[in-house]
Amino acid sequence: MPPMPQTETPGHDLIAKFAAIVGDEHAVIDPEPSAPFLNERRGMFHGRTPVMIRPGSVEEVSAIMRLAEANGTAVVPQGGNTGLVGGQIPDESGSQILVALDRLSRVRSVDPGNDSMVVEAGVRLADARASATAAGRLFPLALGSMDACQIGGNLSTNAGGVAVLAYGNSRDLVLGLEVVLANGTVLNGLRALRKDNAGYDLRHLFIGAEGTLGIITAAAVKLFPRPKGRCTAIVGLSSPGEALALFHIARGLAAFELTSFELMPRICLDFCFRHLEGVDDPLPAPHRWYALFEVSSGRSARAARADVEAILVAGAEQIEEAQTAFTDEDSAAMWRIRYSLSDVQRPEGVSIKHDISVPIGAVPIFLEIAMDAVTKLVPGCRPVPFGHLGDGNIHFNVSQPEGGDGQAFFARRDEINRLVFEIVAAHGGSVAAEHGIGRSKRDLLPSVRSPAEMDVMLKVKTALDPTGILNPGKVL
Amino acid sequence: MPPMPQTETPGHDLIAKFAAIVGDEHAVIDPEPSAPFLNERRGMFHGRTPVMIRPGSVEEVSAIMRLAEANGTAVVPQGGNTGLVGGQIPDESGSQILVALDRLSRVRSVDPGNDSMVVEAGVRLADARASATAAGRLFPLALGSMDACQIGGNLSTNAGGVAVLAYGNSRDLVLGLEVVLANGTVLNGLRALRKDNAGYDLRHLFIGAEGTLGIITAAAVKLFPRPKGRCTAIVGLSSPGEALALFHIARGLAAFELTSFELMPRICLDFCFRHLEGVDDPLPAPHRWYALFEVSSGRSARAARADVEAILVAGAEQIEEAQTAFTDEDSAAMWRIRYSLSDVQRPEGVSIKHDISVPIGAVPIFLEIAMDAVTKLVPGCRPVPFGHLGDGNIHFNVSQPEGGDGQAFFARRDEINRLVFEIVAAHGGSVAAEHGIGRSKRDLLPSVRSPAEMDVMLKVKTALDPTGILNPGKVL
Repeated sequence: MPPMPQTETPGHDLIAKFAAIVGDEHAVIDPEPSAPFLNERRGMFHGRTPVMIRPGSVEEVSAIMRLAEANGTAVVPQGGNTGLVGGQIPDESGSQILVALDRLSRVRSVDPGNDSMVVEAGVRLADARASATAAGRLFPLALGSMDACQIGGNLSTNAGGVAVLAYGNSRDLVLGLEVVLANGTVLNGLRALRKDNAGYDLRHLFIGAEGTLGIITAAAVKLFPRPKGRCTAIVGLSSPGEALALFHIARGLAAFELTSFELMPRICLDFCFRHLEGVDDPLPAPHRWYALFEVSSGRSARAARADVEAILVAGAEQIEEAQTAFTDEDSAAMWRIRYSLSDVQRPEGVSIKHDISVPIGAVPIFLEIAMDAVTKLVPGCRPVPFGHLGDGNIHFNVSQPEGGDGQAFFARRDEINRLVFEIVAAHGGSVAAEHGIGRSKRDLLPSVRSPAEMDVMLKVKTALDPTGILNPGKVL
Repeated sequence: MPPMPQTETPGHDLIAKFAAIVGDEHAVIDPEPSAPFLNERRGMFHGRTPVMIRPGSVEEVSAIMRLAEANGTAVVPQGGNTGLVGGQIPDESGSQILVALDRLSRVRSVDPGNDSMVVEAGVRLADARASATAAGRLFPLALGSMDACQIGGNLSTNAGGVAVLAYGNSRDLVLGLEVVLANGTVLNGLRALRKDNAGYDLRHLFIGAEGTLGIITAAAVKLFPRPKGRCTAIVGLSSPGEALALFHIARGLAAFELTSFELMPRICLDFCFRHLEGVDDPLPAPHRWYALFEVSSGRSARAARADVEAILVAGAEQIEEAQTAFTDEDSAAMWRIRYSLSDVQRPEGVSIKHDISVPIGAVPIFLEIAMDAVTKLVPGCRPVPFGHLGDGNIHFNVSQPEGGDGQAFFARRDEINRLVFEIVAAHGGSVAAEHGIGRSKRDLLPSVRSPAEMDVMLKVKTALDPTGILNPGKVL
């Protein structure tokens, strides 16, 4: 276990000093205005803080950390508060300072010649994407929460999303980082080089560390040419095994132009029909499984369509029925289904969620075993497993039995989690694929990382944050 | 500075204990048989060792490190001995044990369904590529030394090569690592997942650390579909600026199907004509600069050719003359020029080399300033800058004046280095782009990394190798 800082609430004088760093108008002590920052959106995590401060510069973040380290004050950094594992929420002790990065919202520079830009931590993902677009470039990170989440949070959690197949996870998009360390030192690594083997790669320590090793304040990220055209298709299939075979065919033909390949069972569509306005069945007949995939082309929409058609022809044995999008509206309608899957589960009652990954080739057998096991454990429960087949990453969600007792179902979450995680482990998978560890999976970490790995993580934590003030109680 | 282990030669008894771990037949004490391992191929680095040992298993590597740490014995890990900065060569003290990984040469598994394979550190890159090919897949790492270099060395130096544009550097190809730590602990992180955000990313600490934080013994690496066809083209251009414009056009059209984009000046071709048998000028007229690029297609060679033709049409303003390869032999002839550039410089006398990178957009101005500056500093010297334009990575080599005094030229290397590195720094670049720091650039590291960054690196080194026995005198 890492060292834990004091859990006493900072005194009035110390709070005043923190507030003075950012200016009183950017320090919030009243519980009411800080409530949106202290409660996770789904209501899963709640916290308290003596003061929420919103620094407006890297220098202010540095001053905050210097003061925090000198006083042993715990600091919880927060981006857009869209994290699903509670990493961004202080604990209930009321002793942890909440540092919201939303005022660090400048796009410092866009360099189309180098295909890169420098964005501050508080830039919303949608705005980062828009800045790239304005320069004729693409910043490819794309997730459901992109109108709210911020770059700092994306990097601190190594967010994945729907374009990982071609462009990689968040960490793969980072050229350099600016980070404030626990002692307030500013690590300026905002280099924008594709190759730079000068010493240890410190970037990747901070990316995905959920604010426990330093506070990311800015990043130099990669940009890409904007595809000239895309083509989306949805196909009906009998099983995940057929979807996997189709994925390999598609990837073989379109390589990195295959930008997304998503899998979902029929129940996802049924939920959409019930709870979304204006959603039609994309295919004439119902199918047990669906794959939604997209090809992007640097040449034209026509070239993308030609690739999609070649995939459909080559995958004829796997596919029961297919529909290609002919317009942007067709494509948007297909993606609307995929992006709505979290929302449409809500009115179906309690959902127990797992963000898991397994080797790509093991997805079909994992789904078969896990879906069977949970429905045996809780008869009537409804597995809703969907996600990024091409990344081996499935959001293995389980909705409560229809019309049943939600609380009774929720009470069995530990049993269900344990069962799912056992099956994940048996297939060499991860219980924290793209959402991170945060608060909610901290106890699980030692079950998926060896004692030797835990020991190295702890050594790194101790080396970088010897007093343990950075986001205590998260990750390790 | 990191702690330094003893520099006394280990006693006879201790040497015998090291030898006993691997068996006497795999321990070499005589200087003669170990000479190829103690001398860098170009003769730039020489070392001595009390014993060279060649472990045959991870357990033996672990036992070596336990014994080494208990006795404060320095250990230098070595792969294919193709490194260009001396990272793989012990110092002259004769106290450092040389651990050659070449017997860890198993391909442990190939999993086409997951597009991954597990290879041991001593697998030669060419063999790793062949194993992927045999399974119908591509392992894309490709460098000039691939018949000799080994995976462990590739990862420890984060090797780049000619396919970085599409597939990334070595670190981007790694899913998981098995590493032996300084104290002999085996860190088994051979997971083969695309998404796994469970705790800190330890992989990237060891990748590019040149054996100073642990010894990589095996890696789970990504495989890709084999392109169905490729098309190579060489074009003549008036300047690097025109080449850069063409690069952006090519990348815009072909995206990740643009697998290589290499730049070279006329002098590179002249050297080939002089020193290689059977090389014809690829273009009818001579040009000041050349770009060699390749497009790969998942569909067909014809589709790749269509992309190349679209690039040539779109780049008509930039291109003076172009030749497309019509056969594999044409393509091989073009690539032969590029791959021979190190060899053909040798008969031209002394060459002072720099492996630099700058932001892609700054390559033209960097070349203009640096070529002008070195020729002013040493009249008659011949800049031979070539390399991976699309990565901003130029091998800025300078050949001695024709027919001049090689030793006199070599004597000015510090001046030349300083001049080049100043220009690199002024353009936000790196002096260690893809070859690493090793022995030769260790003194430079503090000039390209801030004191804060050096301090974090040192903290990491101290946390993982507290007695400083892993490859001392390298990197930090």
